[in-house]
Amino acid sequence: MRIAILGYGNIGRAAEQAVKAAPDMQLTGVYHHNDCLECIDADVVLICTPTREVQKFASVLAARGICTVDSFDIHGQIWALRSSLDSVCITHKAVSIISAGWDPGSDSMVRALLMAMAPKGLTYTNFGPGRSMGHTVAAKAIKGVKNALSMTIPLGTGIHRRMVYIELEEGADFKTVEAAILADDYFAHDETHVIPVESIDALNNVAHGVNLVRSGVSGDTHNQRFEFNMEINNPALTGQVMVSCARAAMRLKERGEFGAKTMIELAPIDLLPGTKESLVKALV
Amino acid sequence: MRIAILGYGNIGRAAEQAVKAAPDMQLTGVYHHNDCLECIDADVVLICTPTREVQKFASVLAARGICTVDSFDIHGQIWALRSSLDSVCITHKAVSIISAGWDPGSDSMVRALLMAMAPKGLTYTNFGPGRSMGHTVAAKAIKGVKNALSMTIPLGTGIHRRMVYIELEEGADFKTVEAAILADDYFAHDETHVIPVESIDALNNVAHGVNLVRSGVSGDTHNQRFEFNMEINNPALTGQVMVSCARAAMRLKERGEFGAKTMIELAPIDLLPGTKESLVKALV
Repeated sequence: MRIAILGYGNIGRAAEQAVKAAPDMQLTGVYHHNDCLECIDADVVLICTPTREVQKFASVLAARGICTVDSFDIHGQIWALRSSLDSVCITHKAVSIISAGWDPGSDSMVRALLMAMAPKGLTYTNFGPGRSMGHTVAAKAIKGVKNALSMTIPLGTGIHRRMVYIELEEGADFKTVEAAILADDYFAHDETHVIPVESIDALNNVAHGVNLVRSGVSGDTHNQRFEFNMEINNPALTGQVMVSCARAAMRLKERGEFGAKTMIELAPIDLLPGTKESLVKALV
Repeated sequence: MRIAILGYGNIGRAAEQAVKAAPDMQLTGVYHHNDCLECIDADVVLICTPTREVQKFASVLAARGICTVDSFDIHGQIWALRSSLDSVCITHKAVSIISAGWDPGSDSMVRALLMAMAPKGLTYTNFGPGRSMGHTVAAKAIKGVKNALSMTIPLGTGIHRRMVYIELEEGADFKTVEAAILADDYFAHDETHVIPVESIDALNNVAHGVNLVRSGVSGDTHNQRFEFNMEINNPALTGQVMVSCARAAMRLKERGEFGAKTMIELAPIDLLPGTKESLVKALV
């Protein structure tokens, strides 16, 4: 299958490596977000632009019958994105796999599977240690902050500590900046520590992690316990998940199952290269 | 949806509890394996008989257009079972979900997902501590053994120790029995310890566990690490997984996707009650 990449930041670069490593894919081009969309020639486009630009690009491509995959990550707006792309895809016989990263994405599939295994109970998704993009951007926006890095530290039961490292603008007062960060809505609800550093660049590390736990009830049997952990390079995993979902998009299109889908609507076998027989024999 | 249970051992009883706990299911009957199959009246039949009887019952039911779910667990024969049931199901517009337990079953889905997240690398599935049915039956078949229990103990990297507890027949010689067990093909390839006990019944416990690990490569980034753990009541989880798969069978049938499927061919969302919108909003 012929794959193009739109957007060439951390995730676009990681997706490029994953396409090149895939036995059944060919990279037809890397495009930047101001390039002409009509020039893109591919079966599936991996949309690796900032999350807020996903809907615009996915709609235009789907209207040309081209499948797309994105890693749209604003949890509260996923259903709205799915709804808006679903009708375009159905009309133009395309498939759009949305929110295909690790959370939302592969973690969502694990949460759904654990719910099926123990329908009553509680799941906690604990993130980190790793950089939070949203919190980092929020810290950078504070007056007096030259550069920032907000690390998410898991404290269990879905509670997180924020470790905010900042490089101050010349002449900025640390105490004033610290108070502004602690008062910001992104940080006001969590335990937050603000730490001045000489260089944010010296802390640069794309490592991330997840500890997802569920204790639940199967039938009438309580105390069924499940745990999913990972320690990963964040853009590398996101890029790889998008590439595996590009394969699923093509399989769905070939079967005439047009529309927009989240990852919990995909069968794991469709993410993988190889025949049904070889995959069932190797993995089941 | 209307569910019947065929077979009423540990798993049949657990499945009954899971059906009763499901908000969208009604139990229409519990049948024994010598009952008349033509009398079964249900949308989906959960086949909870010994694994070697699954094909016979599933074929007869599928030929009546009735969906089935089983937890057939002979790994090397799953593709053959799938192939034989697939054609019957397609002809008679039924769906048969096979090998729907936790391994094969939910573990298979996790293995497939991890492969999609890091395509190159090694996955190890470590079982236990918990009772192995196959090894217990093999130990019971040894001359001089009155009753037995074979526990599987995980040693990591897919290597397991066998702890075989035996009640001797009156007059049997322990050393002779121990030698016969150690020479049996079920035990000859693993570290095995044979321990005489007064009562196997006193050791009865259906706890089991899994530790599934993968270290792999996403794109060209190595050392991506994943781990899935569970500590569970074995028949309760098997029964629950079968019930969740009964729901998926009905969804597939409603969409006209007839045939036999393993769990890696199912989308997690189809295992769960509720609307697509509510599930995407809650889990993605």
